[in-house]
Amino acid sequence: MYALIRKKRDGGELSGEEIRQFIGDYVAGQIPDYQMAALLMAIYFRGLNPRETSDLTLAMVASGDTVDLTALPGVTVDKHSTGGVGDKTTLVLGPLVAAAGLTVAKMSGRGLGHTGGTLDKLEAIPGFRTDLSPDEMVRQVQRTGLAVVAQTGKLVPADGLLYALRDVTATVDSLPLIASSIMSKKLAAGAKAIVLDVKTGSGAFMSAPDDAFALARAMVEIGAAAGRAVEAVVTSMDQPLGLTVGNALEVEEAVETLRGEGPADLRELCLVIGSRLLLLARNSSDMYGARDDLVGLLDSGAALEKFRQFVVAQGGDGRVADSPRSVLPQSSLSCDVTVPTSGYIESIDALMVGEAARSLGAGRQRKGDPIDAAAGIRLLHKVGAQVTAGMPWATIYANDQEKLAAGRLLMQSALVTSTVEPKSIPLIYGAVDRLGIEVRLAGKM
Amino acid sequence: MYALIRKKRDGGELSGEEIRQFIGDYVAGQIPDYQMAALLMAIYFRGLNPRETSDLTLAMVASGDTVDLTALPGVTVDKHSTGGVGDKTTLVLGPLVAAAGLTVAKMSGRGLGHTGGTLDKLEAIPGFRTDLSPDEMVRQVQRTGLAVVAQTGKLVPADGLLYALRDVTATVDSLPLIASSIMSKKLAAGAKAIVLDVKTGSGAFMSAPDDAFALARAMVEIGAAAGRAVEAVVTSMDQPLGLTVGNALEVEEAVETLRGEGPADLRELCLVIGSRLLLLARNSSDMYGARDDLVGLLDSGAALEKFRQFVVAQGGDGRVADSPRSVLPQSSLSCDVTVPTSGYIESIDALMVGEAARSLGAGRQRKGDPIDAAAGIRLLHKVGAQVTAGMPWATIYANDQEKLAAGRLLMQSALVTSTVEPKSIPLIYGAVDRLGIEVRLAGKM
Repeated sequence: MYALIRKKRDGGELSGEEIRQFIGDYVAGQIPDYQMAALLMAIYFRGLNPRETSDLTLAMVASGDTVDLTALPGVTVDKHSTGGVGDKTTLVLGPLVAAAGLTVAKMSGRGLGHTGGTLDKLEAIPGFRTDLSPDEMVRQVQRTGLAVVAQTGKLVPADGLLYALRDVTATVDSLPLIASSIMSKKLAAGAKAIVLDVKTGSGAFMSAPDDAFALARAMVEIGAAAGRAVEAVVTSMDQPLGLTVGNALEVEEAVETLRGEGPADLRELCLVIGSRLLLLARNSSDMYGARDDLVGLLDSGAALEKFRQFVVAQGGDGRVADSPRSVLPQSSLSCDVTVPTSGYIESIDALMVGEAARSLGAGRQRKGDPIDAAAGIRLLHKVGAQVTAGMPWATIYANDQEKLAAGRLLMQSALVTSTVEPKSIPLIYGAVDRLGIEVRLAGKM
Repeated sequence: MYALIRKKRDGGELSGEEIRQFIGDYVAGQIPDYQMAALLMAIYFRGLNPRETSDLTLAMVASGDTVDLTALPGVTVDKHSTGGVGDKTTLVLGPLVAAAGLTVAKMSGRGLGHTGGTLDKLEAIPGFRTDLSPDEMVRQVQRTGLAVVAQTGKLVPADGLLYALRDVTATVDSLPLIASSIMSKKLAAGAKAIVLDVKTGSGAFMSAPDDAFALARAMVEIGAAAGRAVEAVVTSMDQPLGLTVGNALEVEEAVETLRGEGPADLRELCLVIGSRLLLLARNSSDMYGARDDLVGLLDSGAALEKFRQFVVAQGGDGRVADSPRSVLPQSSLSCDVTVPTSGYIESIDALMVGEAARSLGAGRQRKGDPIDAAAGIRLLHKVGAQVTAGMPWATIYANDQEKLAAGRLLMQSALVTSTVEPKSIPLIYGAVDRLGIEVRLAGKM
């Protein structure tokens, strides 16, 4: 291990054998944390080349169980978002592409910091269970084409150990370590085709688009090395996605979107990622055809019907698909947040809105904290809207007066208005296709 | 601690308060090794500026006891070598400057790797004790003006802890960490005036002269910040110093040098460092006067007489000053190493000779191993000498046939001859004075 630390410290390249050795030994408890911490910091400064990053990812996958999806019919697909505010894409996209005939056996996570988690959102639906075993998950997918469950600790134990150490040694922000962490879990979860949504902007872990594209390329390269069809889109997280932030509120918005309504940005992002999943699964390049298929499934009610089946299959109350508010928990307290100065909305800081939602009770301060499914934020306007002083621009929800006040304070500093009309924020910055070819767009694609 | 790691990782400057905190907390066991390892690696990459390095050194000094030498008469002086092969300077210099009226209360270390240690050399003298307490040391210095004892673990415990961690996390080779480690021990040992001998060349930890000068400057700056008079000389460690390597052999050579004889390079280095110590103690700039005084003390026998007093005071056999070979242990086995190809000696690799001495039994493979005081090497020629194939150029000594064979093998690859006369190797590369002014010399000074 000493020799490996020194090699990486001096800018050397670690062999596949060396990487497999240190991951295996670390998970077996044979390498002390202080040596791993020194290696991680050396990697922070020296980086890992694509081959080293792939080898690290595969060694992490090999550290635990993997999910076998080969018994499932059709092409198994997965998607992953690097984390955003108001990002309920999976709730829409899962049923949508399952309705299109794809096979979705998805493992998700919980909220982290200011960003939400799919499991927390789904659990806002009364009765909904996310603790299915991999076998239960596979059986449900055979019946309904779709399942979303909690990742078990038996998958990629190396990631859990390394992440805990990185978290306390300031080595989280390392591109190859982020890429290998995400991709190890995606590869272990077994899907053949994967679309990654790499967020950029104030509310994302990668605030600069260039960094987001670099992470996208690194992850696509890992996927290619592992023989999976992986693509990435780089999308905006400058303002929250859609109009709601908070678990029950986001489920409600997902249902609206599955009904063919919902906010334009959320619908568009689901169509973009969904089209790419369809093309990967079909091995086709007919983007317009794929998009038309998905729009048809939204308009016909087939996507919403798939959502209902999925909720019921996992023990949830299926009526959420018809009248979400009658089923989902509602907060006891709410208040409006008002515009301080007339003008155009120049920005709604996603990070600040995410922190406000956390303060309201929608997220956790510490891992394992309980969350309030009813707490959250409903935006009434988004960037570019013309507003006048004193009018409400958001409503916030909580079950505790102090939390309501704390959330309001944060929300008040999230809005910036301007007397000149702002340029529109692009939703989609670009994509990296399965061959690693990068396309950057000015706006939508 | 997390915030400190991130700050240094991002190239930030740590405040004195932050440095005192993490050293204090680490020694108190309140910071886990993995966080300290991450910080050390961040320091390896980002460095420490002179203020941070001074603050780190002083925080390390404050982690344990310090020696109070204020009760001693005269100016207390100390010297330190960064480690070399055949470096018995302290054995000559201590008695020499004590004979000149300076006060020498010195703490020394044991051999490390291929380099020797003063304590091991002194202990080759039958009866010699190095385990004096600081109080015993002070009393002996009051009587004889000179003591050389083992550093106790109560001095700078932070250094012991940090060094052990650096040793297993590939963070030893960091200039500010090396400088603070050396200087913390020198400052804690209490002397007012200190001359540092920073070695450069194949047998030194800093092989390049520029790195050695940088370390010299860093240590002089720490000394100045701590209110001590500190100077450094940068000297050659390309070939061994003097003609002997090995504990008893080096004591014998030190006695010869104290008698006014001995190898020219060893005598010269003792006069250079000794003169600087005299000038610092006298606050004078009369280099020639200081040098003449020291030469007089060697020629008159006063330096040798001081050595005898010192040996006797620490329990050793004083007859070592008269007939070293009759008192010092002698090996049972020896053999010559011969010249393979006629020509001029172009180089005698100090690292290789050091490793040969270690193989013969003069050094340790692991900390705590016993050493053989009689084992070692006597060079018959040095760089520049004209030699013919088959003639002996060194004699090696051991008490074990296998060790003799191993040492011989290493010695055979230490010598390089050339048909052209080599340029002479400079003994002294230059100096950094107490004001931080650096002077580089082509040769001797």
